[in-house]
Amino acid sequence: MSASFFAPVRFVGVVGGDCPFDLAKVFAGREVDLTGLEIRKQSKTFRWAGTYHENMDDRTTDLTELNVLAEAPPGVPGKFKNSKFVFLANTAPALQIQLLEQVDKPEFVAVDTMNLWIENNLDDVKALLKKIDCLIINEDEARMLARQNNLVKAGEIILRMGPSVVILKKGESGSITCNNKGDKFILPAYPATDVKDPTGAGDSFAGGFMGSLAQRGKADFETLKKAIAYGTVVASFSIADFSLNGLTSIERGDIDRRFEALRKLTTF
Amino acid sequence: MSASFFAPVRFVGVVGGDCPFDLAKVFAGREVDLTGLEIRKQSKTFRWAGTYHENMDDRTTDLTELNVLAEAPPGVPGKFKNSKFVFLANTAPALQIQLLEQVDKPEFVAVDTMNLWIENNLDDVKALLKKIDCLIINEDEARMLARQNNLVKAGEIILRMGPSVVILKKGESGSITCNNKGDKFILPAYPATDVKDPTGAGDSFAGGFMGSLAQRGKADFETLKKAIAYGTVVASFSIADFSLNGLTSIERGDIDRRFEALRKLTTF
Repeated sequence: MSASFFAPVRFVGVVGGDCPFDLAKVFAGREVDLTGLEIRKQSKTFRWAGTYHENMDDRTTDLTELNVLAEAPPGVPGKFKNSKFVFLANTAPALQIQLLEQVDKPEFVAVDTMNLWIENNLDDVKALLKKIDCLIINEDEARMLARQNNLVKAGEIILRMGPSVVILKKGESGSITCNNKGDKFILPAYPATDVKDPTGAGDSFAGGFMGSLAQRGKADFETLKKAIAYGTVVASFSIADFSLNGLTSIERGDIDRRFEALRKLTTF
Repeated sequence: MSASFFAPVRFVGVVGGDCPFDLAKVFAGREVDLTGLEIRKQSKTFRWAGTYHENMDDRTTDLTELNVLAEAPPGVPGKFKNSKFVFLANTAPALQIQLLEQVDKPEFVAVDTMNLWIENNLDDVKALLKKIDCLIINEDEARMLARQNNLVKAGEIILRMGPSVVILKKGESGSITCNNKGDKFILPAYPATDVKDPTGAGDSFAGGFMGSLAQRGKADFETLKKAIAYGTVVASFSIADFSLNGLTSIERGDIDRRFEALRKLTTF
């Protein structure tokens, strides 16, 4: 949904027969190709539940049911194989590798991961990091992966594991991005006063980021910086409401206006 | 020390006979007028001790001995009474008010405070806030003072308590500044990889901020933004070493170069 504000999206994913949404209806009127959506009637959809703390930034995971995500990954449709900008959302790193191997010659591959895989499937995570361009990761997970508490140093250690770009997400404090040429970019989050549900903020960020890169068709550092700002802005709309409501209620113009506001807020 | 990189400083403060430093030597060669330094031979100097957590951002206070700070405040020398830019460092808010009343017509008064006073002397804090221009406060203390967990909303609530500017400090995540005209400024911290001791980071920030304002002789929002960036940069040098060593080992040119680097790191 986030990426579709910027460029046509090719969706690959799998849900169970219990999925309460008609995804074709959810994405109707948007340039989102759902050919890669598989509905496994006999399986159950992935579920996560958590409790947010009072600051709406820290959270406790109450429940993670992998369900259909513990099965074989969905296939990448033949007409998607020439995709150039690929985002592998958070799932088992072995599945992320299998999905990536189905794409012919991607130009820029970004990956999300989580503590669960760093703790239990570290070898798979490390194999994945050698095949991608960009890791998008929470600050605590970065510290865990790099075994280093200083976040900037942790980013530099992760760069040596393979990716040429690392985006370190700091929740309501924004993000730090570094690449293997020594470039850095630090961006605060948009100062949201209206936070109803931070769930999906990270995915909204990644979607806006990848959509913006795909729209520009390149991924040099100047382009990455603007894409990170777009991702930050889309996430700020996402958390203002439950489910996808924060995104389905806005238009591209709202995003561009907030992008300019974020620039003004951070310029000195 | 921080402020002296930018403008002449008039120092007012009190230590006990046990102070292990010869402050005249410490400040020798700098434009710091120590006429307002009082040494009470029979009293003991203020002491604080704490333990920093692994991220070097959170800390636990192990010991606070007010000592000489619990006595009468030092006097403001007659030749200091025409000072225009006044910073009231952290001490009991009743003492801060007494000190401020000894300055004739200050143009811009900024104040630091802490959880201790918000918890135990809230009425004094509220009286102080009505007499000043700018409160510089940690994010947790801002949430406590405003009784509001959303930091941006907390800033707005504090503005209604009196100051026209509030600077909300977020440690390694920088700061958010808002004023009573609706202007906002968000600045990340400089991405320091070399952190030996964060003690005094807040005071170094305040010193650089006030020094920069005094140098420019004004406090409009554009000037405030640059002063906040200078404060941020000075603090990043301060935490690279123990005591004042991070500051006594640099020159103004180092500060200006890092100021430009911080601008480049945050521009998109």
